[in-house]
Amino acid sequence: MKTYTVHFLPADVTAEVEDGVTIADAAQSVDVFINNLCGGQGLCGKCRVQIAKGRAQTEEDAKKFFSPDELMKGYVLACQTPVHDNLEVVIPPESRMEDSKIMIGGPTDESPKTELKPIVKKVYLELPPPTGEDNVPDIERISRELRKQFGWHAFDVPLDCLQHLSDNLRQNDWKVTVTLAKTGDRYRILKIHPGDTSHANYGLAIDVGTTTVVVQLVDMNTGKVLGSEGRHNQQATYGEDVISRVIYACGKGGLAPVQKAVIRNINELIKKLSTDHNVPIEEINAAVAAGNTTMSHFLLGLSPCSIRLDPYVPTADEFPQIRAEQIGIRINPRGVLQTIPCVASYVGGDIVAGVMSCGIPEHEEIRGLIDIGTNGEIAIGNKDWLVCCSASAGPAFEGGGTRCGMRAVKGAIEKVVISEGQLDYQVIGNAKPRGICGSGLIDCIHELVKNGIIDPLGKFQRDRKDERLRIEDNIPEFIIAYPEETESGAAVVITESDIDNLIKSKGAVFAAIKSLTDYIGLGFDMIETFYVAGGFGSYLDISKSIAIGLLPDISREKIQFIGNSSLTGARMALLSETAMETCINVSRSMTNIELSTYQPFTEEYIAALFLPHTNRKLFPSVTY
Amino acid sequence: MKTYTVHFLPADVTAEVEDGVTIADAAQSVDVFINNLCGGQGLCGKCRVQIAKGRAQTEEDAKKFFSPDELMKGYVLACQTPVHDNLEVVIPPESRMEDSKIMIGGPTDESPKTELKPIVKKVYLELPPPTGEDNVPDIERISRELRKQFGWHAFDVPLDCLQHLSDNLRQNDWKVTVTLAKTGDRYRILKIHPGDTSHANYGLAIDVGTTTVVVQLVDMNTGKVLGSEGRHNQQATYGEDVISRVIYACGKGGLAPVQKAVIRNINELIKKLSTDHNVPIEEINAAVAAGNTTMSHFLLGLSPCSIRLDPYVPTADEFPQIRAEQIGIRINPRGVLQTIPCVASYVGGDIVAGVMSCGIPEHEEIRGLIDIGTNGEIAIGNKDWLVCCSASAGPAFEGGGTRCGMRAVKGAIEKVVISEGQLDYQVIGNAKPRGICGSGLIDCIHELVKNGIIDPLGKFQRDRKDERLRIEDNIPEFIIAYPEETESGAAVVITESDIDNLIKSKGAVFAAIKSLTDYIGLGFDMIETFYVAGGFGSYLDISKSIAIGLLPDISREKIQFIGNSSLTGARMALLSETAMETCINVSRSMTNIELSTYQPFTEEYIAALFLPHTNRKLFPSVTY
Repeated sequence: MKTYTVHFLPADVTAEVEDGVTIADAAQSVDVFINNLCGGQGLCGKCRVQIAKGRAQTEEDAKKFFSPDELMKGYVLACQTPVHDNLEVVIPPESRMEDSKIMIGGPTDESPKTELKPIVKKVYLELPPPTGEDNVPDIERISRELRKQFGWHAFDVPLDCLQHLSDNLRQNDWKVTVTLAKTGDRYRILKIHPGDTSHANYGLAIDVGTTTVVVQLVDMNTGKVLGSEGRHNQQATYGEDVISRVIYACGKGGLAPVQKAVIRNINELIKKLSTDHNVPIEEINAAVAAGNTTMSHFLLGLSPCSIRLDPYVPTADEFPQIRAEQIGIRINPRGVLQTIPCVASYVGGDIVAGVMSCGIPEHEEIRGLIDIGTNGEIAIGNKDWLVCCSASAGPAFEGGGTRCGMRAVKGAIEKVVISEGQLDYQVIGNAKPRGICGSGLIDCIHELVKNGIIDPLGKFQRDRKDERLRIEDNIPEFIIAYPEETESGAAVVITESDIDNLIKSKGAVFAAIKSLTDYIGLGFDMIETFYVAGGFGSYLDISKSIAIGLLPDISREKIQFIGNSSLTGARMALLSETAMETCINVSRSMTNIELSTYQPFTEEYIAALFLPHTNRKLFPSVTY
Repeated sequence: MKTYTVHFLPADVTAEVEDGVTIADAAQSVDVFINNLCGGQGLCGKCRVQIAKGRAQTEEDAKKFFSPDELMKGYVLACQTPVHDNLEVVIPPESRMEDSKIMIGGPTDESPKTELKPIVKKVYLELPPPTGEDNVPDIERISRELRKQFGWHAFDVPLDCLQHLSDNLRQNDWKVTVTLAKTGDRYRILKIHPGDTSHANYGLAIDVGTTTVVVQLVDMNTGKVLGSEGRHNQQATYGEDVISRVIYACGKGGLAPVQKAVIRNINELIKKLSTDHNVPIEEINAAVAAGNTTMSHFLLGLSPCSIRLDPYVPTADEFPQIRAEQIGIRINPRGVLQTIPCVASYVGGDIVAGVMSCGIPEHEEIRGLIDIGTNGEIAIGNKDWLVCCSASAGPAFEGGGTRCGMRAVKGAIEKVVISEGQLDYQVIGNAKPRGICGSGLIDCIHELVKNGIIDPLGKFQRDRKDERLRIEDNIPEFIIAYPEETESGAAVVITESDIDNLIKSKGAVFAAIKSLTDYIGLGFDMIETFYVAGGFGSYLDISKSIAIGLLPDISREKIQFIGNSSLTGARMALLSETAMETCINVSRSMTNIELSTYQPFTEEYIAALFLPHTNRKLFPSVTY
């Protein structure tokens, strides 16, 4: 079979592929990441690339994504263009999968005060040498000391820890450092090291999000966070949303590449943290990962196929503690990985970690957690009970499904104000705008409806005179940033169909909150605090979120934006046995309300497709 | 460096070695096994070989082992002769390490009646498929069913059992076979197999003896023994006795080859059993091994060095359940190996298994177990208490340390009677005699003292006229088989120094029994039954053993020869969770009396160096 070379720019990487392979697959084969919201189905049009040298024809259906001028210039969809020639392919900025530093977001860097009992401990022991009267076996001498000093019982000792133990002890004057992991109600000895190495014991908290992967490096001896790094989940090359990835994994491609993509992400982040903070990989002894149920399955290489099929059954909702190495995560080869347990197919370990991190299961008063992403997940409860539900919100809040939507990274408009006819925006990283992220879109809709540019159904007042309002192909759109202000030279706009998508998203989230509180028979006002988590970067305007009907209309100070609570929870579980136990208890005791079969939800959803809501009594403070 | 070839006959195997390597090491390098009682120190003279072609000089010190005629014929000690030429080396029968089928010995083939709850179970499940109302995770569906059917709780599930579970269940109509191992108080799932494979579940009981390794293949579904195979422990190439092997392992050679030798033995036996009984290796899911503390350490690759040094501390006395594969034992790759726990450095899992197999810890009445080998181990107790001790008996009962001693294999004289001046003997396998084994030596001494040929000190009556009595180099010896009767054409004799060694051995065993009963304040008559175990083949004359003062003089029916109780115990532990728990309880609760620091033992030992004993009141029934 013929092979061709495909040279990608600006990455300057060359793939060698067989005749007929798509440009998208060629890029994937050499780790060049191109946007791919729909998983290569030719539906999203986000993988546009320009052929600079060589001949290539995009499929007929894909041409609708381009103007005649663009087609002339050689633009094609990477996923819909087979390679039949040696090519040079330019990937324009809008098609590059963002690899820049992402925002960790929210107040996650301060450890909530917890006991310091990390999942992996290092204990330095100076043992009394054996005598005729005290000649217990070597390993018993160690476990006896651990029992005596810490009250720990029940040790599992793997064979390799025993194999050189005798010489180890005698050559090092009976001074050793024991590394142990807590798993369930037992301690497992991971390593018995000569001398005192107890000063170096690091761990990782990992948030495995659908959109972004964040890794935090923690000193497990002090609980101090040394640094955090985030990156877009490169699984997006197999589909932007979870369902596309599941279809890919359960179809032609198989699970392995999807698993590998996120493992590679994690390893890159670990490497960077290790280098930046001067912590050798070998001294990282534990990792705790939190993700939604599907992401947890991907991470561990468990088949996700039945999660998306009625009756939505995962393989597992509690996961064994494994050696991180088993799935290719590069830390100390004996280091462990614990994945936070899940509740159900659509309420994952990220929510469990979040609920724990907010202290919901510890207090008498009722608290709620709202996690806004592709799914909106709501959990409400206190120390006696916990209920939760999940509603599909669509990708709008994460920058998908909208013309100029993007994630909360450099170049994203995150804040919009229209005051006295004047529009101002704020861009992440003080850069030229490239698009608009979730918090920017929420702001934008609020400003549009408040200023009467759109009506409560989200429709533009077409007859209104506003230089920013224009109509393209009979769809009205509003210009947020003019072409001359942007990086690419194309305007950043919000279209009527974007607004429609956003209203559906906010409607789903609000309907979920309303359905859940109704189900348990509580008014919003009976909830002490609502914690709002999500990938909005470091910014979310609570008042505007209420005003568009995304969040319930309660006293503003009862609502707290807490950023990435999944990461916070993972870190707490890394550092505290009690926090880990709480996660297990939450996952076992939380009642999941399946909204897809819960009749009142549909009615609530329809009622919420309005700004702020068809029932204005629910939003007394909203004045527009 | 120069290399030479050494061609071994009759094995017809050629080694290529560097200049200066000994013939013994050359043989080892190509798996030709030559007797080596002293571990290559040139002390035992058992590795005699004949140089047929080429030139080789044995070390000066080694010449004492040969007659001038033998030296002329090219006899050398393999361990004391460096290779400086291409050689052809003939290994005479007396120097070949026996590889013929060894006697399993004693009534071990009948399983004592125990509950059938094997260490590894296979359970066939037909699960109800999930519905909207019953959508627990797949693994929970399995563990729920196991809880329901068997009341089992607490499952460990390794990641690889989860990874294809989802597809497995759905493609096989929710019918699976779960293989589980019991470890401590938990069940570990080893494998989840599509369909019903529960009919095939085999296990191995392994007795890892210093001298012989015996493997028994058992159907774990029925408890039936399918077959047993034994072989001499090829670790003997690194030293006949345990201490020589420890010196080798802790010195130049390292532990690895010593461990590998016994693993190779075990694998060969498994292969033979698997072939002979048509049981695929993959259907063998478990093995339980029993051995003394040092052999258990060798098996698992644990350093044995501190066991032989004051204060005699092993690495461990309880051993983790491992995948057999981890140490190279070839059964199902997920199959487990459990090694029976030990009590102390010189009271091992073989004794623990033996004590359990005799039912000592279950009964009100007091019972004793005497295991006679290189060490004599004694355990006494009942359901409330257990004490034990160990005394070095030397290799005499196992065929070592005597001129014509050999193990209980084909060609060994196992029975000797002298009646009215007429000597008769019985040879194992109805072959021509090649030597004499432990039971034959016991018989022989008894016959000699009873007939007045030796005195109670074991000295020959030199003036006595007996054609079988001759004096060589001023050491009297007694001919048991004349040259013309034997395979090699050399007489099988017992010398005065052989008898001396045997008296020391029997004295040590008796002194240990006496010390232990005195320690606990019991007369022999208060012990309901003495079980006698040991590698005597299928035969041991209890009356003669008493008459030479090896066993206490109690009613004969109170003494039972039970053969290989270590193997019996290992099989019981393989087949019964309760038996395994009993072993753990025995190992933890048995009190070990350290005879080396127990003053009365020395006195008892000296008093026992007499036939039957210096205190004849202890042996009222002995009439000679």
